[in-house]
Amino acid sequence: ARAVRGLLLDVSGVLYDSGADGGVPIAGSAEALRRIKAAGLKLQLCTNETQATRENFVKKLRALGFDISVAEVTAPAPAACRLLKERGLRPHLLVHDDLIPEFAEVDKTNPNCVVLGDAAENFTYANLNEAFRLLIGMEKPVLISLGKGRYYKETDGLKLDVGAYMKALEYACDVQAEVVGKPAKRFFESALAELGVPPEQ
Amino acid sequence: ARAVRGLLLDVSGVLYDSGADGGVPIAGSAEALRRIKAAGLKLQLCTNETQATRENFVKKLRALGFDISVAEVTAPAPAACRLLKERGLRPHLLVHDDLIPEFAEVDKTNPNCVVLGDAAENFTYANLNEAFRLLIGMEKPVLISLGKGRYYKETDGLKLDVGAYMKALEYACDVQAEVVGKPAKRFFESALAELGVPPEQ
Repeated sequence: ARAVRGLLLDVSGVLYDSGADGGVPIAGSAEALRRIKAAGLKLQLCTNETQATRENFVKKLRALGFDISVAEVTAPAPAACRLLKERGLRPHLLVHDDLIPEFAEVDKTNPNCVVLGDAAENFTYANLNEAFRLLIGMEKPVLISLGKGRYYKETDGLKLDVGAYMKALEYACDVQAEVVGKPAKRFFESALAELGVPPEQ
Repeated sequence: ARAVRGLLLDVSGVLYDSGADGGVPIAGSAEALRRIKAAGLKLQLCTNETQATRENFVKKLRALGFDISVAEVTAPAPAACRLLKERGLRPHLLVHDDLIPEFAEVDKTNPNCVVLGDAAENFTYANLNEAFRLLIGMEKPVLISLGKGRYYKETDGLKLDVGAYMKALEYACDVQAEVVGKPAKRFFESALAELGVPPEQ
């Protein structure tokens, strides 16, 4: 008989509610996390967070009372870095300033692809035109999108998410973006690989 | 036998090449326009120009040597105004500053639709979020787009056109925009109505 040996958990809306103020923990979630670990189950947090490095994301969650480590977080940016390396791709980044350190080790000279994240305030007319011009100028445009969310809620209201800007560039360049992050199958598979547990367990 | 009695002509790329400097006439086009009129043919210029009122657009073309009048120009904004009036729609405008006077007569209080044009520098993160929030908050979101171009060239390089931003809002709100302007059939029909000539002539 197959027993459950590990869990993939979402973060935003499961462990805490996000917001410009850093967010608030959801009642009982820190205790639930403790019990999962006490029961000997492995745990991997699967998030589409792309407004901060994993290090800072974990720092924030720990401050909110969650006992987690960087290795227990699967996020789009590190997954994108692996993909870039595998395929010899050099990205032009249109992402949030706080995410840029995740790409520190990646060669970004003479870009042959565009990586799009939830750039928030960096989604300016000039930055979008720049990403578009690079893409349309490529022999074979490669657009990698860190998620494809439509929108999300912050304390000051709804915000367009990366998926909307992905669609704008897809249409302008007549390309299909490669999505890294939920709900891409490959993303969950890499979370399972990090967990060290097969899908059926 | 049916004779040709009127012509619909494009403007940008046919009469002149546009640019931040006002553009340059295409060789022979002013003379061709004169001959068409001298031959007694009716003429309607069909443009997707949405960065200026028709008045200013015509002023610019006249300065470039073209003998045309405002009545000879069919453009998306006046067509959108007719549509808004017919359906009792009150728009929130995300358009170029120079186009706003075209909507002077339209009730814009308590918006129940969004009108999207090539807003250029007005395509800011804040303005896009504002248009999105209004749309998603409507019981039945109505998005009217003045054209659906992918991009266009200016003297300082390629720019994303209104169609890209239309796709972003369509995706975020799960709606389909109503396109006013080329290539919408309705737009050509209204140009023909203004010309006073049936399609087959």
